[in-house]
Amino acid sequence: MTEAAVAPNCLAGVRILDLSQFEAGPTSTEVLAQLGAEVVKVENPKGGEPGRILGTGPKPGADAYYFMIYNANKKSVTVNLKSPRGLALVKDMAKQADVFVENMAPGTIEKLGLGWDELHALNPRLIYAQVKGFGEGSPYEHNLSFDMIAQAAGGNMAITGEVGRKPIRPGPTLGDTGTGMLMAISILAALYQRTTTGTGRRLQVAMQDAQLNYIRGAFINHARTGEPQERGRAGFGPPVPPNDIFPCKPGGPNDWAYVFNSHNNPEHWRRLARIIGRPELADDPEYLERDKRIAHSDEVNAMVEAWTRQHTKHEVMRIIGAAGVPCGAVMDTSDLLAEPTFEARGIIQTQQHPSGELRMPTFPVRFDGKPPKIAPSPLLGEHTTEVFGSWLGMSERDVKGLKDDGVI
Amino acid sequence: MTEAAVAPNCLAGVRILDLSQFEAGPTSTEVLAQLGAEVVKVENPKGGEPGRILGTGPKPGADAYYFMIYNANKKSVTVNLKSPRGLALVKDMAKQADVFVENMAPGTIEKLGLGWDELHALNPRLIYAQVKGFGEGSPYEHNLSFDMIAQAAGGNMAITGEVGRKPIRPGPTLGDTGTGMLMAISILAALYQRTTTGTGRRLQVAMQDAQLNYIRGAFINHARTGEPQERGRAGFGPPVPPNDIFPCKPGGPNDWAYVFNSHNNPEHWRRLARIIGRPELADDPEYLERDKRIAHSDEVNAMVEAWTRQHTKHEVMRIIGAAGVPCGAVMDTSDLLAEPTFEARGIIQTQQHPSGELRMPTFPVRFDGKPPKIAPSPLLGEHTTEVFGSWLGMSERDVKGLKDDGVI
Repeated sequence: MTEAAVAPNCLAGVRILDLSQFEAGPTSTEVLAQLGAEVVKVENPKGGEPGRILGTGPKPGADAYYFMIYNANKKSVTVNLKSPRGLALVKDMAKQADVFVENMAPGTIEKLGLGWDELHALNPRLIYAQVKGFGEGSPYEHNLSFDMIAQAAGGNMAITGEVGRKPIRPGPTLGDTGTGMLMAISILAALYQRTTTGTGRRLQVAMQDAQLNYIRGAFINHARTGEPQERGRAGFGPPVPPNDIFPCKPGGPNDWAYVFNSHNNPEHWRRLARIIGRPELADDPEYLERDKRIAHSDEVNAMVEAWTRQHTKHEVMRIIGAAGVPCGAVMDTSDLLAEPTFEARGIIQTQQHPSGELRMPTFPVRFDGKPPKIAPSPLLGEHTTEVFGSWLGMSERDVKGLKDDGVI
Repeated sequence: MTEAAVAPNCLAGVRILDLSQFEAGPTSTEVLAQLGAEVVKVENPKGGEPGRILGTGPKPGADAYYFMIYNANKKSVTVNLKSPRGLALVKDMAKQADVFVENMAPGTIEKLGLGWDELHALNPRLIYAQVKGFGEGSPYEHNLSFDMIAQAAGGNMAITGEVGRKPIRPGPTLGDTGTGMLMAISILAALYQRTTTGTGRRLQVAMQDAQLNYIRGAFINHARTGEPQERGRAGFGPPVPPNDIFPCKPGGPNDWAYVFNSHNNPEHWRRLARIIGRPELADDPEYLERDKRIAHSDEVNAMVEAWTRQHTKHEVMRIIGAAGVPCGAVMDTSDLLAEPTFEARGIIQTQQHPSGELRMPTFPVRFDGKPPKIAPSPLLGEHTTEVFGSWLGMSERDVKGLKDDGVI
């Protein structure tokens, strides 16, 4: 049997000193770990980063699924940042690192003496990356943030929801992972630049600012109309039907399928009309021409719905999609976990953790045909001896001494 | 006056041959252009890529805002891909390029003779990147996709919406831009690797697969409960109030603010109770202890709402946020465009295009304090002579000849 996933090894030899926690910071370093970097989490000896106990895990007292999913493929060392010797140790590691990442509350890292000025002076090659809730210079610069705060203040919620109803928080964690992906891009660009300049850069992203990158469609609509995009209306003009989700058999909460006719391709309608048993409308200009079809929106949507209600969402997607009409079943995690090709293609893998298993998505880009292979998230301090040995040349005895002294 | 934005120049000298269109492909190359790569769009001489006319632009007949926002900082050349000489020209460009990007319908690029095998043989250093709707090996491999199809089939819609109501498409274009960001990460990782290996890689991402990266929170919940996450319930357990949006003065469609008390920090409640005029509850264990406060959810939410209704969302965010309680106004594009620090910080810039202006967000990561500066999107074929000169050594006369022959 051929493995469905590989170690892409793009970042072999890159050392990342990771003081980040929860999701926005850890997702930026997790993808780098999956692409081959050595990512070392620096954690509090007393319990580690707070994400370790956010919700439950495979068994009582074990690391939470939350931690497992956002920290795969990383290493962990413990350091007591309240001890001057512990701080000195982090500085020694920063001298050996290529990248430093943190997302503590505003001002915290500087108070620890681990700010850009200090670490850049110690290691001019170091790429120094910070994730905060709000940007430097923003009126909210000192405020705390979490995913939902970024999704509210970054514009996502205002454009998500049903027509005429209240704003909705998008389910995907764009405030966190969406921000983390932009930081990963920036770290990689700085690493590439460093191959010629030899110098690191200071990178900063704010969760609020990051959201603007994902709602540029709303800025397009604003430019067109001079007003914010109305909730439930995403297109650039009146919607050409069908362009919505339709209820499917047997009527459960996620038994819906999206059916879309691009307004640039009249073939979509021709094909769909035949599928839904209305071939006489396929070439009828009243329905074929998009501007005329808009006037028949209610009727067209009712026709499509009459057909989708007779099929499951998977049938709807299979039949309509195969005919060359854009269609997507509203899949939930049960559907995704049950679709065998995700596993066969390596997109969903099982993390084999000492505490138990976790079926989870990997970074979903394939390198020469295969996506990155998931390795388990680290136990707290699992790699302390190994990393202090390889990064700092310490013996096992040195490490034991630091542990006995409460430094690590 | 100091410029609020800079050219980060991380990718100076990197040549990207961009055959992508619409949003998922173009966003992956736009960020690389903003980070300093030379991105050359190859477009049909008759009208260019279809995104140029998607919706309206600054004036009739000009490029659409849609095109302007997703193609800033790029160059454009025209090539007729139906002409054998045109195809040969693209192959000549591929020999000079570092990265090739395309997101045509499944099979199209291979039929053109510009597949991985051909281009890799011509230029083993070339990084070859493809964005498709569904993954190779998926039952939907040959299906078309658009943002809403990816958001349905990739799991986003199932977890977005109000409790007990139908699935909602998130407003942010995660199906497109979300996918583009993951491809940008992968291209950069492959570029970095190539500095030591000298060899390019084949990169493939599917829009459906990409969504799984952004809904890992739902996979955590699935692992915990064995079932899909219920719409409108994102946390890892019963929600500790307040953890929702609350209506604000004067009651317009986006006059809401998110107020959140982390279940790990009792200080949030203490601070909030004082702000909303209920200091006597700040230390009352019935309200202070999170598990007890859950039993008072309706009462707590009503208290918060009674206070938020007396203030605008901006006042709510300012007052509650300044007190150290996570809070975010539901900002729409009017709010974001009106907040002066976005412009001062360079996060929102004005694209100065020959056809008119467009206020838009840039890639929101700051490099040494400043985000990338936006340059206009290219006019169709604006850089044909320049690029064919610098990449292929052609004279202006050569280029004119190709134009006269209908090759470009």
